[in-house]
Amino acid sequence: MTTIFDNPEEFAEDQLAGWLDLYSDRVRGVTGGVVALPVAGAAPQVAVVIGGGSGHYPAFCGTVGTGFATGAVVGNIFTSPSAAQVYSVAKAADQGRGVVLSFGNYAGDNMNFGLAAERLRQEGIDTRIVVVTDDVASADEEEQRRGIAGDFPVFKAMGAAAAAGASLDEVERLGNASNRATRTIGVAFSGCTMPGATEPLFTVPEGHLGLGLGIHGEPGIRDVPLMRATDLARLLVDSLLADRPATAGTRVAPIVNGLGDTKYEELFLLWGRIAPLLRAEGLELVEPEVGELVTSLDMGGCSLTLQWLDEELEELWRADAYTPAYRKAQAPVAALDRDAIAATESRAAEEMPEASDASRHAALVIRDVVGAMDAALRGAEENLGRIDAIAGDGDHGRGMVKGVSAATDAAGRVPEEAGAAFLLGRVGQAWAAEAGGTSGVLWGAALEAFGRELGDDATEIGAADIAAASGAFARAIQQLGGASRGDKTLLDALLPFVDELEARVSAGDDLATAWGQAATVAGREAEATASLRPNVGRARPLAEKSIGHPDAGAISMALILETVGGVLAAR
Amino acid sequence: MTTIFDNPEEFAEDQLAGWLDLYSDRVRGVTGGVVALPVAGAAPQVAVVIGGGSGHYPAFCGTVGTGFATGAVVGNIFTSPSAAQVYSVAKAADQGRGVVLSFGNYAGDNMNFGLAAERLRQEGIDTRIVVVTDDVASADEEEQRRGIAGDFPVFKAMGAAAAAGASLDEVERLGNASNRATRTIGVAFSGCTMPGATEPLFTVPEGHLGLGLGIHGEPGIRDVPLMRATDLARLLVDSLLADRPATAGTRVAPIVNGLGDTKYEELFLLWGRIAPLLRAEGLELVEPEVGELVTSLDMGGCSLTLQWLDEELEELWRADAYTPAYRKAQAPVAALDRDAIAATESRAAEEMPEASDASRHAALVIRDVVGAMDAALRGAEENLGRIDAIAGDGDHGRGMVKGVSAATDAAGRVPEEAGAAFLLGRVGQAWAAEAGGTSGVLWGAALEAFGRELGDDATEIGAADIAAASGAFARAIQQLGGASRGDKTLLDALLPFVDELEARVSAGDDLATAWGQAATVAGREAEATASLRPNVGRARPLAEKSIGHPDAGAISMALILETVGGVLAAR
Repeated sequence: MTTIFDNPEEFAEDQLAGWLDLYSDRVRGVTGGVVALPVAGAAPQVAVVIGGGSGHYPAFCGTVGTGFATGAVVGNIFTSPSAAQVYSVAKAADQGRGVVLSFGNYAGDNMNFGLAAERLRQEGIDTRIVVVTDDVASADEEEQRRGIAGDFPVFKAMGAAAAAGASLDEVERLGNASNRATRTIGVAFSGCTMPGATEPLFTVPEGHLGLGLGIHGEPGIRDVPLMRATDLARLLVDSLLADRPATAGTRVAPIVNGLGDTKYEELFLLWGRIAPLLRAEGLELVEPEVGELVTSLDMGGCSLTLQWLDEELEELWRADAYTPAYRKAQAPVAALDRDAIAATESRAAEEMPEASDASRHAALVIRDVVGAMDAALRGAEENLGRIDAIAGDGDHGRGMVKGVSAATDAAGRVPEEAGAAFLLGRVGQAWAAEAGGTSGVLWGAALEAFGRELGDDATEIGAADIAAASGAFARAIQQLGGASRGDKTLLDALLPFVDELEARVSAGDDLATAWGQAATVAGREAEATASLRPNVGRARPLAEKSIGHPDAGAISMALILETVGGVLAAR
Repeated sequence: MTTIFDNPEEFAEDQLAGWLDLYSDRVRGVTGGVVALPVAGAAPQVAVVIGGGSGHYPAFCGTVGTGFATGAVVGNIFTSPSAAQVYSVAKAADQGRGVVLSFGNYAGDNMNFGLAAERLRQEGIDTRIVVVTDDVASADEEEQRRGIAGDFPVFKAMGAAAAAGASLDEVERLGNASNRATRTIGVAFSGCTMPGATEPLFTVPEGHLGLGLGIHGEPGIRDVPLMRATDLARLLVDSLLADRPATAGTRVAPIVNGLGDTKYEELFLLWGRIAPLLRAEGLELVEPEVGELVTSLDMGGCSLTLQWLDEELEELWRADAYTPAYRKAQAPVAALDRDAIAATESRAAEEMPEASDASRHAALVIRDVVGAMDAALRGAEENLGRIDAIAGDGDHGRGMVKGVSAATDAAGRVPEEAGAAFLLGRVGQAWAAEAGGTSGVLWGAALEAFGRELGDDATEIGAADIAAASGAFARAIQQLGGASRGDKTLLDALLPFVDELEARVSAGDDLATAWGQAATVAGREAEATASLRPNVGRARPLAEKSIGHPDAGAISMALILETVGGVLAAR
């Protein structure tokens, strides 16, 4: 949805006015668009004037600046600028060395830039036209293809050449070479909405993607069902490799471009699937770009571009640039210190302390307990989810299973000679890392506290030590979570358990008996808690949500205590 | 909609893997997150370790690099990273000068970063915590507020200080000072969708915005009806100015941040409304940032942040930075050449040539004709729209009225002593600029061609000259548009008109009679064209759409020819 505007008909002018205010230290508004402010002492250069409709930011004005475009013509949303606009911007951008007009291949742009070129030539300004035709989905014949994300590398090549002092002939030649070496395939997940419109400009059928759909909704190849990222990567890569230019070598500049609604994390994930496929083809990937370079308002979708590099195109692709939306510099990453990198690699290692017999024995029991908890929680997952759904978001069962699974895995990786503290340290950290949410943190910290209380070097571990460790377990949760008994959290089961366990052990009961009795108390209290009315409001901070499982948390705690009791009784 | 993933449960790891592949030349993945690769020769610095859940890119790993964060901890989507993750990243980032852990104020983050800090301190690593609390909508008490887009300037301040060699005490002090000076207010237009979910995580009532709604859907202040950009700017500015810190001066660093679905052009437009309000308050705006800095997947919405600068905060805000998602450098814009700027300002001027009496007389007739066309098209707008809606998108009437209105205005601005060529040059350019689409270009170019054929210096302009100019008018449209007679475009009315006009004039008819007869032929042909079945498919390139008004274009052409005939007959 496009939401922010005053008068939809003035959207393009209004957004440009805001943009010009923002970057007034480096660009200047002229009739029809913008030009880069000249930098003192820089020699005159060929003017590279790019443009098209608005709605594609950073295309087109976002890349006006050092090492990129000299000026950009800014049309209405998704509409070619007029010839008069193109003429005006080109006149302002001209530095006496000629002008290249460059734009994506659309009928309106061809006409208007073409008319402007004629007028400029009539006035004696040598003017060339470089049309971008990278969209392999739009036509079989290269020169009939539309221009989409390939605008970016083609404009950059010319901007870099012009900044390096190339002649008009050279800039034109390199622009055309860059275009011929550039291929893009795009997919659309959803349409975009024009300012003031209540319906999208076009739609993609639910559950599908439009393969090759254009950035203004132009027809693509076909609609296909949505697919996994791995399959999408394969589709995009295969489409481009099937259309290699005749001159293709083994070095490519790849671009994964987001159209608006498809966000950075998705694009990175997709890149993670695309890169290995390209490398498996023997391609060397040169300074890939992943982000939003040619957008379509809030359209959902993305594209993959490959520019096949030769020596001169690679130099232009690697060249520095400094524009409002795109900045590239070699310096800070060129001087990496490989020794220092190696040092960071080993810094986080941690050694396992030697353990006493008593602690190693306790660790063996703990391994059994973790395994039993794993089985019990898997069995209870659905029920816990159901209880949690009454007051919370229903993911308590899932979270507990994720935590205990990670704990089980971690225990399996700890050497057999580990003591209880080391073992529970790893178990707790794994639980916290994988369970997610606050309850994961609480469980993780509590398990670690239990282990610390037992220690790795205790000469003996008896019932009183286990009771003390259970107290430490409960205190960790109280301190971290800030809750008290009666707040309808797991503490409503845990605190009565600890009190009962300590009392029974003090009274001389053996551990298994005392634990079993205390677990029964915990179960009763958990049931009582569960019958209370939930106190969770709507939309609490997500990070706090797992505190919002009051009854489910108490019930899973009681279940675990009972399970541990079973293990102790069986030994 | 979040669309690109394999397994939704592995979204966070998978996107991080892709990101690490992309930026492997400057960052390194470690357990729990990423650290910046050290730059050769750089002195050890205080480690600034930031973090939180995924889904907020460029927060958090996007700003790891020179002059910004040393490392970032990467949690699951919208979920705090675990203490073990924080610990691991901090260990890898530590350069022996201490660590600052910094994050937005959420329960889970406080716990996990707090636990990690304790563990780091136990190992002798001096560790400080700086919590960001900029969201004025989330609580009255400053220290209870959530952290949102204010993360950006607070992290940047610490990163810049650390890069400049500041001590741990100093970096901590500056981080806290930066946080105290920073205020944000946000609005949400729509919720975001978690990977794998079919429903949004939360929603905003249709036609409303959530004032102060948090970046994970936390409750805000209230829902209010959607408003114009000007009113939204006022709301945001007033909210922040009502909450000025005690130490506030007159210099501020403003940030307009987009949450995902709200795109760049909208943010620029909003900035164009915000900036004057801030300046009217006597504030000096220091290097504002407008873009996506702290997002929430594909959530719709934006926020305004103000950091109130003193001398040291301003220096940190202005400092260079080079990170994957944010790059700032002073050099290229510092050396502007004001003389060269002035030169570009006047370059596009154009002089009016002196005109002959005959051409000035023709220009007077043309002014009458333009006025009559204006009236006729306004009267026909609705009908033309209706005809166009059958085959096209129904905007032909609107486009023609916009074109002729602009032409009328332009004619009014041309001095009375202008000749026909100069007048029609201005008229045609205005038409093309404002009508939009291809038909605007065609009309504009055709009017200019008509004028060029007449010239500004003709000693006499007779019926044959007008017929020749009409031929030039038609040729301009044929050459630019590439259509022929029978393609159901305006040529189907225009070409028979020109033939008939030339024949009548050659036969000796006076201009008004010949024109009237030719216009009658054009009208008949247009009606015939309109009865043909439309040949327009769905979703043609937008730039070509106005070619897709075949019958409406012929009808409006015939109407105009008839109107001109009326003017000529009345003289």
